Amino acid sequence: MSSSPSRRMKIGDFLLRRLEEAGVRHLFGVPGDFNLELLQQLQDTGTLKWIGTCSELNASYAADGYARLNGLGALLVTNGVGALSAINGVAGSYSEHVPVICICGSIPLRSIDRGLGMHHTMADGTWDRFLGAYAQVTAAQARLTPHNAVTEIDRLILTAWREKLPVYMELPSDIAYLDIEVPAAPLMLAEPPSDPERLRSCIAAIAGRLSAATSPAILVDLDADRFGVASEVMGLADKMQVPVAMINTAKAVIDETFPHYLGIYNGKASKPHVHEAIESSDCLLSIGYRPIEVTTGDVTASLPVDTIRARGHSVDVGDDNYQAVTLKEVLRGVIDAVPHVSNRTPRHVAAAAASTHADGSAKLTQAAYWQAIQGYIRPGDVLLVDNGTSYAVFGLNLPPKCTFVGSVNWGSIGYSVGALLGTLTAAPDRRHLLFVGDGSFQLTAQELSTILRHDHKPVIFLINNGGYTIERGYLGKTEHYNDIANWAYADLPKVFRPDTSARSFVVKTSRDLQNALSAPNDTMIFVESIMDPYDAPAAVISSSNSGADIDYGPRGPQHRGNVQLRPATYDG
Amino acid sequence: MSSSPSRRMKIGDFLLRRLEEAGVRHLFGVPGDFNLELLQQLQDTGTLKWIGTCSELNASYAADGYARLNGLGALLVTNGVGALSAINGVAGSYSEHVPVICICGSIPLRSIDRGLGMHHTMADGTWDRFLGAYAQVTAAQARLTPHNAVTEIDRLILTAWREKLPVYMELPSDIAYLDIEVPAAPLMLAEPPSDPERLRSCIAAIAGRLSAATSPAILVDLDADRFGVASEVMGLADKMQVPVAMINTAKAVIDETFPHYLGIYNGKASKPHVHEAIESSDCLLSIGYRPIEVTTGDVTASLPVDTIRARGHSVDVGDDNYQAVTLKEVLRGVIDAVPHVSNRTPRHVAAAAASTHADGSAKLTQAAYWQAIQGYIRPGDVLLVDNGTSYAVFGLNLPPKCTFVGSVNWGSIGYSVGALLGTLTAAPDRRHLLFVGDGSFQLTAQELSTILRHDHKPVIFLINNGGYTIERGYLGKTEHYNDIANWAYADLPKVFRPDTSARSFVVKTSRDLQNALSAPNDTMIFVESIMDPYDAPAAVISSSNSGADIDYGPRGPQHRGNVQLRPATYDG
Repeated sequence: MSSSPSRRMKIGDFLLRRLEEAGVRHLFGVPGDFNLELLQQLQDTGTLKWIGTCSELNASYAADGYARLNGLGALLVTNGVGALSAINGVAGSYSEHVPVICICGSIPLRSIDRGLGMHHTMADGTWDRFLGAYAQVTAAQARLTPHNAVTEIDRLILTAWREKLPVYMELPSDIAYLDIEVPAAPLMLAEPPSDPERLRSCIAAIAGRLSAATSPAILVDLDADRFGVASEVMGLADKMQVPVAMINTAKAVIDETFPHYLGIYNGKASKPHVHEAIESSDCLLSIGYRPIEVTTGDVTASLPVDTIRARGHSVDVGDDNYQAVTLKEVLRGVIDAVPHVSNRTPRHVAAAAASTHADGSAKLTQAAYWQAIQGYIRPGDVLLVDNGTSYAVFGLNLPPKCTFVGSVNWGSIGYSVGALLGTLTAAPDRRHLLFVGDGSFQLTAQELSTILRHDHKPVIFLINNGGYTIERGYLGKTEHYNDIANWAYADLPKVFRPDTSARSFVVKTSRDLQNALSAPNDTMIFVESIMDPYDAPAAVISSSNSGADIDYGPRGPQHRGNVQLRPATYDG
Repeated sequence: MSSSPSRRMKIGDFLLRRLEEAGVRHLFGVPGDFNLELLQQLQDTGTLKWIGTCSELNASYAADGYARLNGLGALLVTNGVGALSAINGVAGSYSEHVPVICICGSIPLRSIDRGLGMHHTMADGTWDRFLGAYAQVTAAQARLTPHNAVTEIDRLILTAWREKLPVYMELPSDIAYLDIEVPAAPLMLAEPPSDPERLRSCIAAIAGRLSAATSPAILVDLDADRFGVASEVMGLADKMQVPVAMINTAKAVIDETFPHYLGIYNGKASKPHVHEAIESSDCLLSIGYRPIEVTTGDVTASLPVDTIRARGHSVDVGDDNYQAVTLKEVLRGVIDAVPHVSNRTPRHVAAAAASTHADGSAKLTQAAYWQAIQGYIRPGDVLLVDNGTSYAVFGLNLPPKCTFVGSVNWGSIGYSVGALLGTLTAAPDRRHLLFVGDGSFQLTAQELSTILRHDHKPVIFLINNGGYTIERGYLGKTEHYNDIANWAYADLPKVFRPDTSARSFVVKTSRDLQNALSAPNDTMIFVESIMDPYDAPAAVISSSNSGADIDYGPRGPQHRGNVQLRPATYDG
């Protein structure tokens, strides 16, 4: 223990205090006998606000959505059953680089010391299985004890924040009320400053390459958001007139109305001017680029071999690898070091999407649907986008200050509904739009009840098209395994909250949709749109089609006739 | 490869064939691009029947419920997101000793060979994280390859069946359609016979002890069901007039109308005659006994030190440990070896529960509720029992041939709804009764839609008492963290299937309940009973009260005034 001023606190109270100091204001989760004592401390201290969820998986999604807007999120679960119910969402936070603290109220230390069999365990005398499982999907893990609590609580919170990754902490139920000596000073969230020489050399190397280039470009992945450098990227692009492309995971991270914004880079599936600007650049600066098949036109991305690869805490420039540098300091230094450029070829201006003039009374199509949605989105909206045909959102032009929240790398269907609870809790004054298909919605539908319970007012766009349309593009176009039960989705708000004022719409035509879109947003709006199972945005289905070749290989069943949904007319 | 006859088959087809040979007739799960190719093989071969679920967690519960009645169950999920969504249910199968095969359609081997980033992964270049997580909660794991598929498929299926534990198998999506050489002979599920000497010695040791005893007794845990020895236990008890007690986990494993059935043993919380018979026995034979705090009167169980401990594949008698013996052979041998006894003191006959004469128009109480349920249960019913006040079922006297399906060791709330789909699928001709509270139901409610989709006709008893009443007995009697949103539960069947013929009832009085109980069971019956949040069976709440002392220790908050719901009048 250092000689800094200290005081005595209960372990649970100290944990809550540290979370609060780290900017966490809400805690999501499900009560269980092994975490009730911490809930009581939360209640008694009035530190965080408890947001009980219907399930732990939904709590993990909510904490992830919350962390995306708040910078850090946390959930509380119970031993074994709660921890493992939440692990898929926490693993998603790892894949998507989101700092989430998963706290598990765990079996008491007395039961470990004495070898007592406890419920919520494997009932085989072991007690470290869930730490072991979480070691696979988090950046750090610990079981708290009275003697390690101060060190481990700080280590785990700081690791989550620094690495933008989830961590896992077990709080045995019999230690939360024990007094320990804790630091009096608040926890400081701060990046350690870069090594001065490494930073200088790194900046000089990047600035030198950029200044000498004739066709520089910047490619942005989601770490530009997680490490908070979107404004630096735009500052650099602005000063040197460098075009900026994003991959899907980074949708809306760069303001899409920014003059140097180029579009989405997606390997061979990119628009030609984006493809050309990125792959033929003589100095490409990538920010946190992590290629996966669904964001690289099914592994057709081909970046220049000498691409500068900047990450949160390291940079590759040519043969040199720079450690002990932070992304923000690097980019700020580069901005200072490069010259103003004003004579670069102007950027390609995207043609406005051809607007189809749908017959208002005709059956609603995906083309008409997304065109109407394009008109509905306002600056500052938070867009929750689930996997499936809702990926048409990638093709929309977003106004300024929008936030895109999705699970693109991890791709866990149902994520968006739980995440919506989290984003609403983090930023209740923004407008939140949920885009979800019926298949995804069915996994986590119950969390709508928590959203209603807290009087949130999101606009929910649910596509009812009878199943997993995105999978029909891989295989089983008409097979029943891609079909799902047909719920009366729009009736759910009044089941989940009988006194709700939510406005529900069942939409079958463009006119129905326009009617729903003109409803006042003084309460939740739930729009269920009935569409054809075989109608889908071309970009989504093309990606599924080529994904099937990667997935199943040359002997796979995708080559047979009519087993895949193929793109029709709509170029979404 | 042995020299037995072989033939060529596609790997996926061989896997399906082996499952079918092992007695698996249905496969639960959620489609994903990495498992569609196996679904197509299932469709083309017509081997198993696909039962798509709303979520993977529910699939894992369904496979567990199915395996309890069928002997083996299986689910199919997709890489990462599906595997981790299901892991809580699979871990529960471990804790509850249920043989379940979790098959994960995983990323193609080509992506591992080439280091391609794929969705549904941690997006960090690793590909063994989910095998690592499952290593914590299953008896065996493997990633299939063309060269190991024959060996690993057989090993995993046999391990699950032999050990009565779950296993995990990854089937890379690009190998399912590749031809390999496979054995022509079907898979045989058979216990290896015991070592003859060990078996003889073990039988002699047990029979000797039992024959010499004056107060022998048998204590049964759930392995008596899993290893299929309930009839042997009853045969032995019958021949020697030995009383048999069960712990809660084994509810209904021994026919409760069996003349030598004694009751539930639960440490100090047992009825006196059961407590006496077990703890003072001069020769106690325990079958698969695994004490956990919630089945041992909160660690107050105290078995005689020389208890004979029989397990699935080993037995302890005094200082001797017998390996290479199987439970069924041991028990059959003991039955043959012991003398007939006809002069043992007759068993204690349980007094019929005092029946309270509830005023039909008074608010429904837990006492009146469970008394009415007692009258409703028929021989042969399958009882799905979730955690919470539904644990009152432990106190009911069950007629012959009933099956109890619960998650007592693991205690995962919501389990019962998914498991119900599984038991209905395994035994559609039996009557299935679900006992679930509102808090538990909210985790997995959507699976009701799958049950409706398949025209099943369970009777669902849902207690709507505003939250987690069992937790109120630990802590937070009136705290809002134990409250939940109040759904219009009885309206859900018609949301999940608008054309349903399900009969829904909202019950507030005993008369309402009687009315619901007299409804014809030609369709699903859904009975939502509104009860007081502070009304609970005394046994359930007493267990919570003393559990709090173990959980939170002497400094815990449970000692304050009025923070715990305490038992009132109903001795349920």
